[in-house]
Amino acid sequence: MSSPTGVESLQLSITARDPGCAARTGVLRLAHGDVETPVFMPVGTQGSVKSLSQEDLEGLDARIILGNAYHLYLRPGTEILREAGGLHRFMNWSRPILTDSGGFQVFSLGELNKITAEGVAFQSHIDGSRHFFSPEKSMDIQIAIGADIIMAFDDCTGYPVTHEAAAKSMRMTLDWAARCKRHWESRQSPRHNLFGIVQGNVYEDLRIESAEGTVALDFPGYAIGGVSVGETKEEMYDAVRWVAPRLPDAKPRYLMGVGPPEDLLAAIEHGIDMFDCVMPTRNARNGQLFTNQGRINIKNARFATDFAPLDATCPCPVCARYTRAYLHHLFRAGEIAALRFNTLHNLSFMLDFVARVRTAIRAGRFLEFKSAFLREYAG
Amino acid sequence: MSSPTGVESLQLSITARDPGCAARTGVLRLAHGDVETPVFMPVGTQGSVKSLSQEDLEGLDARIILGNAYHLYLRPGTEILREAGGLHRFMNWSRPILTDSGGFQVFSLGELNKITAEGVAFQSHIDGSRHFFSPEKSMDIQIAIGADIIMAFDDCTGYPVTHEAAAKSMRMTLDWAARCKRHWESRQSPRHNLFGIVQGNVYEDLRIESAEGTVALDFPGYAIGGVSVGETKEEMYDAVRWVAPRLPDAKPRYLMGVGPPEDLLAAIEHGIDMFDCVMPTRNARNGQLFTNQGRINIKNARFATDFAPLDATCPCPVCARYTRAYLHHLFRAGEIAALRFNTLHNLSFMLDFVARVRTAIRAGRFLEFKSAFLREYAG
Repeated sequence: MSSPTGVESLQLSITARDPGCAARTGVLRLAHGDVETPVFMPVGTQGSVKSLSQEDLEGLDARIILGNAYHLYLRPGTEILREAGGLHRFMNWSRPILTDSGGFQVFSLGELNKITAEGVAFQSHIDGSRHFFSPEKSMDIQIAIGADIIMAFDDCTGYPVTHEAAAKSMRMTLDWAARCKRHWESRQSPRHNLFGIVQGNVYEDLRIESAEGTVALDFPGYAIGGVSVGETKEEMYDAVRWVAPRLPDAKPRYLMGVGPPEDLLAAIEHGIDMFDCVMPTRNARNGQLFTNQGRINIKNARFATDFAPLDATCPCPVCARYTRAYLHHLFRAGEIAALRFNTLHNLSFMLDFVARVRTAIRAGRFLEFKSAFLREYAG
Repeated sequence: MSSPTGVESLQLSITARDPGCAARTGVLRLAHGDVETPVFMPVGTQGSVKSLSQEDLEGLDARIILGNAYHLYLRPGTEILREAGGLHRFMNWSRPILTDSGGFQVFSLGELNKITAEGVAFQSHIDGSRHFFSPEKSMDIQIAIGADIIMAFDDCTGYPVTHEAAAKSMRMTLDWAARCKRHWESRQSPRHNLFGIVQGNVYEDLRIESAEGTVALDFPGYAIGGVSVGETKEEMYDAVRWVAPRLPDAKPRYLMGVGPPEDLLAAIEHGIDMFDCVMPTRNARNGQLFTNQGRINIKNARFATDFAPLDATCPCPVCARYTRAYLHHLFRAGEIAALRFNTLHNLSFMLDFVARVRTAIRAGRFLEFKSAFLREYAG
């Protein structure tokens, strides 16, 4: 399929489908490289995955990372990124990048923000300076950043929210999505694939209306937004269950801001392809570490004399060299190295986890893998 | 020369002497590997060079690092280190380690400390618990840590200090040095080479008395302590000038807690072989970075759009990949990665600097190198 500018629009080449559910594997072909799905994308909000280097990310074989338009617009600023030749060159990362539009951050971090149909006026959380984001401006910023995947500028409701407020916000998001699409087309930048975002909070009728309205606008990919805002796991799984089957099979599906391994498994079962979450990196900095037997807190006194690796089956460079006792010591002693070691481990765990999921799907035994993983992880 | 236990005592194999001054290159053969001198030793107080991994240190080709007996005794504690099989195994570092005795830290960090001829009673700066360090106990702790070079337990005066107080402290240090030597010999642990420490503050007669008294005790190596405590550079250079020629030529000479490149050059000229300092690592965390053209502060606004490496001639992995503009952004944005990048660069600079010094000495042109370096660095 050709876009108006002669560049092929984004396709998800589906490489395998699980016979027992909607889980699938695929390959996203982006300007900066191919990405195998299901994929977990480490979050590098400010042009840095916290505590890691780009060499570290390559070593973990991360194929795509996130940036955030709100943060990068405020610091270093769009002008400096343009002068550098885009975020890829600024941070010297040659693999794909996805940027979030900044909608969520304008509301959660920006101060004194005022929302109109036109867009959002807000003050920087850094220095109080005044700014205005519109769907068009968000497109321009994300194109200047140069991300391979850019996100529509949306309005994200909290939890709980009334049906009326959720409906109003969802319909404004649909209007904004149409404006994003028009402006993006006018910029003729098909290398920067625009994803629409489905909203509607916990209401089935709104989620369906949003899914159908967003799909009607015809985006290169689709995201489910407005989850992980305080709702229960069951409510989040419901949103996925309502929306995923209404998104085009040949396009990538991205569940934003999720999450723990058990949530990835639930969403992948319904055909979700892409995930991002600060949880593995943020938890790492708090000493909360993944193992196949569940999460542990490395601060716990029982690790002081535990000379085994964090997880004997983990392929990460930290498990290859350091013991729980050493990591416990570093964390308790406030050593900066602890933050990086913990982050390397948690991200490696997540990336290895989705790689195992892909293997299971290709073998046609995703549901088996899911049960076995959860039995060990939650048991 | 054989020790009573049949293990050869430490020798500095001198490999070159500069014809114009006392500068020399050599090789220290330690249980965990050879160390070429002059050497700069990165400081890893708590069993971690702040923000770096052991892989990083190997990548920088650091051949020996420091630990601190006071910090390691308090946390993780001698028992855990013994159980781990020593600090080398605890932190999985196979190259040499030198431990400071903890004397300096007992006074500067310990609370409510009380000094008697027997030793020092103090309270932990971490939890207020009560402890007692004596020369004998410091030996036992450092042997349990398992360092290749261990330091005598000394008393370090501040600046300014009266001649009377400096003399009293220096003579107590001499008594303690004799007790350290006796206890160390009784432990029959020649793999852990004990260095005596010359004190005497800024007073020539005291420095000479201390040097002669310490040398008379016959240690495997000698350190000049009590510098970098607030005295002027000239006073510090004087201490080196008085002491270095009185230390045995065939034994390593270590100037403790120094320092900036210009001070290393001054000391190497007088025949000093070993250095340690927190400055490159601490400055890095404050954004103060070395270049061959002098120090820069990466926070400075002029670096926001400077897309050159920190130092075009620097061999470090940070200069190979990242720009000043990116490092400026990371530092201003409070990113943890900035601390590691800055530390990698500063340590690489220091290690490369002493490697260039060794090359210059071997070529018989140390004084030429010194002038050329200082012209560019201070100019």
